[in-house]
Amino acid sequence: MQYIRTTELAQHVGARVTLHGWLHQLRALGKINFVLLRDGYGIAQAMTQDAQLLAPVRDLQNESVIEMEGNVVAEPQAPGGFELHDIAIRVVTPVTADFLVPLYHPTINASLDTILDHATVALRHPHRRALLRLSAGILRAFREFLNDEGFTEIQSPKLVASATESGANVFAVEYFGSTAYLAQSPQFYKQIMVGVLERVYEIAPVFRAEPHDTTRHVNEYVSLDAEFGFIENHFTVMAMLNRLMRHIIARLAEWHATELPMTNIQLPAVPESIPHIHFRDAQELILQLHGQDCRGEPDLAPQHERWLGAWARATHGSDFLFVTGYPMIKRPFYTHPDPENPTYSNSFDLLFRGTELVTGGQRLHRYADYLAALERAHLPIEPFRYYLEPMQFGMPPHGGFAVGLERFVMQLAGLSNIREATLFPRDTKRLTP
Amino acid sequence: MQYIRTTELAQHVGARVTLHGWLHQLRALGKINFVLLRDGYGIAQAMTQDAQLLAPVRDLQNESVIEMEGNVVAEPQAPGGFELHDIAIRVVTPVTADFLVPLYHPTINASLDTILDHATVALRHPHRRALLRLSAGILRAFREFLNDEGFTEIQSPKLVASATESGANVFAVEYFGSTAYLAQSPQFYKQIMVGVLERVYEIAPVFRAEPHDTTRHVNEYVSLDAEFGFIENHFTVMAMLNRLMRHIIARLAEWHATELPMTNIQLPAVPESIPHIHFRDAQELILQLHGQDCRGEPDLAPQHERWLGAWARATHGSDFLFVTGYPMIKRPFYTHPDPENPTYSNSFDLLFRGTELVTGGQRLHRYADYLAALERAHLPIEPFRYYLEPMQFGMPPHGGFAVGLERFVMQLAGLSNIREATLFPRDTKRLTP
Repeated sequence: MQYIRTTELAQHVGARVTLHGWLHQLRALGKINFVLLRDGYGIAQAMTQDAQLLAPVRDLQNESVIEMEGNVVAEPQAPGGFELHDIAIRVVTPVTADFLVPLYHPTINASLDTILDHATVALRHPHRRALLRLSAGILRAFREFLNDEGFTEIQSPKLVASATESGANVFAVEYFGSTAYLAQSPQFYKQIMVGVLERVYEIAPVFRAEPHDTTRHVNEYVSLDAEFGFIENHFTVMAMLNRLMRHIIARLAEWHATELPMTNIQLPAVPESIPHIHFRDAQELILQLHGQDCRGEPDLAPQHERWLGAWARATHGSDFLFVTGYPMIKRPFYTHPDPENPTYSNSFDLLFRGTELVTGGQRLHRYADYLAALERAHLPIEPFRYYLEPMQFGMPPHGGFAVGLERFVMQLAGLSNIREATLFPRDTKRLTP
Repeated sequence: MQYIRTTELAQHVGARVTLHGWLHQLRALGKINFVLLRDGYGIAQAMTQDAQLLAPVRDLQNESVIEMEGNVVAEPQAPGGFELHDIAIRVVTPVTADFLVPLYHPTINASLDTILDHATVALRHPHRRALLRLSAGILRAFREFLNDEGFTEIQSPKLVASATESGANVFAVEYFGSTAYLAQSPQFYKQIMVGVLERVYEIAPVFRAEPHDTTRHVNEYVSLDAEFGFIENHFTVMAMLNRLMRHIIARLAEWHATELPMTNIQLPAVPESIPHIHFRDAQELILQLHGQDCRGEPDLAPQHERWLGAWARATHGSDFLFVTGYPMIKRPFYTHPDPENPTYSNSFDLLFRGTELVTGGQRLHRYADYLAALERAHLPIEPFRYYLEPMQFGMPPHGGFAVGLERFVMQLAGLSNIREATLFPRDTKRLTP
């Protein structure tokens, strides 16, 4: 049997075809009856005036798996512009129970908790799965761009002997009689691998044992990491990220013409040169524009980021804004200081629509600088010895960045909770499905 | 400053260029002196009769990070066929300590344990990093093929509430006052997602708490998983995998002309139709050819696999062999039985050069079959409830497979220990680097 996808009807007008998929909705109106079949790619409509033809599914529920044969007819009224006539339905897997909410409504009429509890089926909703396809598109475009730029993909271990960066908020694992930890990021490994491959990236899960639930955090998420050598400073990294973002957004537009309107996404324009503002100037600006004096504070609050995002939009027409030079005191020990003013760092955040989307910067690359930085941070050398070894044997100036996949999708689609952008979210209360 | 890569010299003959990278080797022979510079992509040779020009690196060690300017000259004797003359060297990051072994020898003269202990630098050896590039090539080709076949990439959670498949050999994680486990495979999630996206794949780490060290196992590895719906039986899955393997091997040949000879890899020919043999017939064959009667045993031993691999090579000219129909008793509860003889299963292993490389098969798809299978396996329903929910709401016949990345590279390159194919291996004794 030759099957076609629901998205391929246009190429088969006038022919008899067979589809397979799920019974999305049956509208038996008596004289005119509609069958909506959903496959992995879209939805096809069939119309019949012969109610007898619906007999195989009459006593079944939606989500039954079916095959449907029919003649393809152009029909401007039908979703997608085509319709099946003279249908024959065969049932592959009958469903006799009712799922908790219909999946054919424009939105799922249930609380987020209920949707998440039953995500294994609720994700079949066309809008929910469109987000998953967009997520996959982001990953694909990320890799495509970096491959072309000479980056090599790596897969670093997630089980590590000691807390990777901060020492706090790590998950402990029983490991053959001792304790291992889940990596909070591939930071150390991607830096190490710059010494080997010059330019590397990794897409992998990261684990944060943060004990508070917010709408912007989950405890396991997908991190898109890149790191490369022979940079001048953090502006080299920002320039690469700028081009990467342009590429990703361009590819989403190209690949996801179906998913974008379905998820109400207006893709941002990414300027050829994303505006940037120094942390210090950002605080001055906030004082000027909003009368709030946050000068001297070591970080920006979410409200500050939103104000800066609005400012970038209004004055630069940009949904993106780089904030550079965050105070060293708030950045991890491996951060490279600003040589002109070592209170500040050669680091940046990329704000997207007023929320931090990417963090990055230049790292230390000299062994002696690492020893001094660890001492300043009152950190012991021993757990970092493997990380320091490549620093002792020749590292170029290097830097990189990390993008949170779910955060990106959340911001793109304007979701109010990151869990809506996460396949099967993990938080302090949720370990299933 | 405009830099070129060592691999780009051919396009700059006659021009003055600047390279950057690591001092791979300095051969100061007095009258004729050679500098080998290694960047992330290859090695370039410079020659000078003026020993003065080497002054910047004379007191430094290999692996110092340098920039080197010079005129590009065609020189058949030089590696790659080009050489830099009239050089000027600037030191970026000086190295004053000696790494434990020279990285410019054809092989690293140290024990595997020593190499692994110092992998953060030892991986810079050109042969070691060639294996990493090949690994990345396998991932890229895998995704490319499956994207073209309508598969969607997913990223499933690695923290799970209960042991995924067998219940044994899972790592326990302290999770906010309760216990979570590290996923042994994305098996359940990829099946669930067939209900959403029809065809899915995932490349991610998996965790196996197996307490014994062998040369073929590590406790964390990268699994390439695919799963898709609307199959007829396991032969549909095998046909997809067959084409995937052909694609991967073809791409490795195309993309890795440099790395293949460096790692002594002879790529296998993948037949258009890989031969297959039923488990039962494989046991008969072993009796016939080697006089060993293993009939009635529920699995194949490594020696059996080697014999079968040799047989496939000799009689079919194939490095690959499918063994189908493994006894149900040795396969997990979700395995679909052979409808003609339910003692056997609709499953397969793909042997590559006499070692299992891929495991796959058809899964159960009817809710009632799952309930019966769990009962037969004396497993409780409760921990599997999230997994059973999509089975209750319409799943098509489906199946898939999983490839171990490191195992694949090990077999391709004929390595004697999987740790040589693993970026930073994890075993019962090793959690660093």
